Amino acid sequence: MSEFLTLNIGLCGFGTVGQGVWKHLSANRAELESRLGVKLNLARAAVRDPGKHRTVKIPRSKLTTDPLAIANDPSIQLVCELMGGTTLARQVTLAALRQGKIVVSANKALICAHGREIIAAAQEHGGHFFFEASVAGGIPIIKALREGLVANRFPRIYGILNGTCNYILTQMEEQDAPYAEVLAEAKRLGYAEADEALDVDGWDTAHKASVLAWLAHGMWVKTDQMIVEGISGITPADFKNAATLGFGIKLLAVITRDLAKNELCVRVHPTLLPAGNVIANVSGVFNAISVTGDVVGTTLYSGRGAGQDATASAVISDIADAAALLKHGKGAHLIGEAPTPARGGCKLAPPESIRCRYYVRLTVKDQPGVLARVASVMARHLVSIASVIQSPAERAGAASLVLTTHESNERAMLATLKQLAGLGSVLDRPLLLRIGDFGD
Amino acid sequence: MSEFLTLNIGLCGFGTVGQGVWKHLSANRAELESRLGVKLNLARAAVRDPGKHRTVKIPRSKLTTDPLAIANDPSIQLVCELMGGTTLARQVTLAALRQGKIVVSANKALICAHGREIIAAAQEHGGHFFFEASVAGGIPIIKALREGLVANRFPRIYGILNGTCNYILTQMEEQDAPYAEVLAEAKRLGYAEADEALDVDGWDTAHKASVLAWLAHGMWVKTDQMIVEGISGITPADFKNAATLGFGIKLLAVITRDLAKNELCVRVHPTLLPAGNVIANVSGVFNAISVTGDVVGTTLYSGRGAGQDATASAVISDIADAAALLKHGKGAHLIGEAPTPARGGCKLAPPESIRCRYYVRLTVKDQPGVLARVASVMARHLVSIASVIQSPAERAGAASLVLTTHESNERAMLATLKQLAGLGSVLDRPLLLRIGDFGD
Repeated sequence: MSEFLTLNIGLCGFGTVGQGVWKHLSANRAELESRLGVKLNLARAAVRDPGKHRTVKIPRSKLTTDPLAIANDPSIQLVCELMGGTTLARQVTLAALRQGKIVVSANKALICAHGREIIAAAQEHGGHFFFEASVAGGIPIIKALREGLVANRFPRIYGILNGTCNYILTQMEEQDAPYAEVLAEAKRLGYAEADEALDVDGWDTAHKASVLAWLAHGMWVKTDQMIVEGISGITPADFKNAATLGFGIKLLAVITRDLAKNELCVRVHPTLLPAGNVIANVSGVFNAISVTGDVVGTTLYSGRGAGQDATASAVISDIADAAALLKHGKGAHLIGEAPTPARGGCKLAPPESIRCRYYVRLTVKDQPGVLARVASVMARHLVSIASVIQSPAERAGAASLVLTTHESNERAMLATLKQLAGLGSVLDRPLLLRIGDFGD
Repeated sequence: MSEFLTLNIGLCGFGTVGQGVWKHLSANRAELESRLGVKLNLARAAVRDPGKHRTVKIPRSKLTTDPLAIANDPSIQLVCELMGGTTLARQVTLAALRQGKIVVSANKALICAHGREIIAAAQEHGGHFFFEASVAGGIPIIKALREGLVANRFPRIYGILNGTCNYILTQMEEQDAPYAEVLAEAKRLGYAEADEALDVDGWDTAHKASVLAWLAHGMWVKTDQMIVEGISGITPADFKNAATLGFGIKLLAVITRDLAKNELCVRVHPTLLPAGNVIANVSGVFNAISVTGDVVGTTLYSGRGAGQDATASAVISDIADAAALLKHGKGAHLIGEAPTPARGGCKLAPPESIRCRYYVRLTVKDQPGVLARVASVMARHLVSIASVIQSPAERAGAASLVLTTHESNERAMLATLKQLAGLGSVLDRPLLLRIGDFGD
């Protein structure tokens, strides 16, 4: 091994993912090094509390409490930023890149918030930024989009990117259980965080959608430029109504590009998917992504989207790419590292360009004439009704009114919803779900 | 663009795939070149008949009838071998690699037959051999195994790798139609070749299994070292029996490695898959591959496994990798280009190590005592019966006897089958199908 180059790796963050990386890298070191022709040296790790008991042991001499010390250590060539957060993580990432180092990141929130600055810093200073673990855990979707499908432009990418939400929705559907009850159980089992908002309100999915949209289209889309809706408003009755209509319900990221108009749309919302759709049948904590390319057609990827081992697999694949880069000589740019103006240059789709069928659930006063009033509001906005299901609501004197529409658009539907919410006979905030007619 | 390097590409073979590569590369040239920082010059193409009418136009001055002239042309840095066959294709591939060139290949039959020699030639002379298009068309499974999942060892890889067989099986199941009728229709529609043997007898799947096994385990397994069985013996009744038992039937490649015993098993056969298995629900010409890694768990990949556009997508991704290599400087080895002894070194599993449940269909004389005789043969080989379905056979005086077994092994089952075939009351050659209890 003496002729091998050595890659000195610093881990910033030694929690679940960091320990997973250390564990698997240690276990498979000989084989990996022999395949790569590079010695992988886990040189240092930054932790908050060096005295804390950890399942995965690490020599005390390699520990520091200062991640910036690792980023600034001249002997470290590769920094794994596995701390999370967007403040210190940003400082560490930028510090390392500005010294021409390689940064491996699993931090989708950071990339979504500061991706443009990070990529610019890498390009300016000859650093490299790898982020396979930031989306869909162990599924190599970043590499697929960036390299494997490089011949393609992408009219549509959609999928399940948050295992916590998919677990909750699966449980609600299978157990016919209300959201709050399933969420509490998910917290107890460790499938949901104590503060669940990032997951269930769709923000984590939105961060990942932002990463995928940039890769596929070279455009940074922030969460405030997307539709982002979570799953907390969904009830067991919605699953029954959806099933009656032939659908399942999944929280999806949907990234569509109209290649003719050059409009890009990134959105995150619960979606009614036809029961036969492969992604409608992905259950529990699994992730799945459907990628439609203009050359390859539709390819599908699924697997565990989170967890120590799956995420470690992705981080280690980035470390391997970094080792290859080290061997090839610094300064080289990898395929697609910088999406170019030809990829970008598109504009965000305006609301009237975002078209689909819709599912609307209203809780209304149980009295005659309500459906007529609702229908006339919809007609005023040229929203055409496709089906109606009326059923008793849980509340006395109320009824549940579920309508599906023919194809309409976001502008018309938001105006419709606003006016429906203002009707005296509509009791609660209306629930709007989108129907995903994606084919397969 | 003047500072860009130029990659001169020669296409050997300008049929369906070659024309697809030319078409899509021409259409997306500006964007691809800008992403790669390399100019892609389609310099020459070798065809059998330069005068033939082609949908995709190419200047006559770029055409030659001699693929070796392209391989030996000093101005060509990358040779795409898209001719098929294993004689001239081997000569062209070796000639190019021995001059340190890059060869991009879609030729699984060639890799299966001569992979060891090809890889050795590449290593000795500094050439590079890329083959993303050789397995599963546009699905980037080669890159996933070699790079995206580099942290993993692979206890199990299985999937549908031949769209023709999957189309035929899907039609047989959905239309309740006999094999010969569906095959004739598939030929008429162009889904099956005039000589169908390569597809329906499992050889094409076996070639692809060989490529995947080498990538995952670093061991070359030839088709005569595998179980290879095709689909021609399957009848509509088998689909009905399988459905009764809760299974679908798919032609699968199955590559398993017992990490403890270090035994590798590569096999291709029609397989009963539980109806809920995702791959059991992949229909028509689609391919799907389930990859279980020791770190990442199970990930799944599906998409179009063949056709002009899907294959072109894969070939172009290899061309892009080649461009990156050119830019990084020759002599560099890419990740996993050479699986190392650590990956190899395993031995082939002996028949008694290949264990699963089995489905056996016998056509027997419709008379008392037959089941007893069959059961006693099975007992003699310690094969335990799990279920029996008896039904009238199409032939007068005959009955169909379908048995499933508890877990057994290849050695016991082959001995059992041989003895069953010799019974006077067993009329036709028994059909043996394997049951895939893979989980998901």
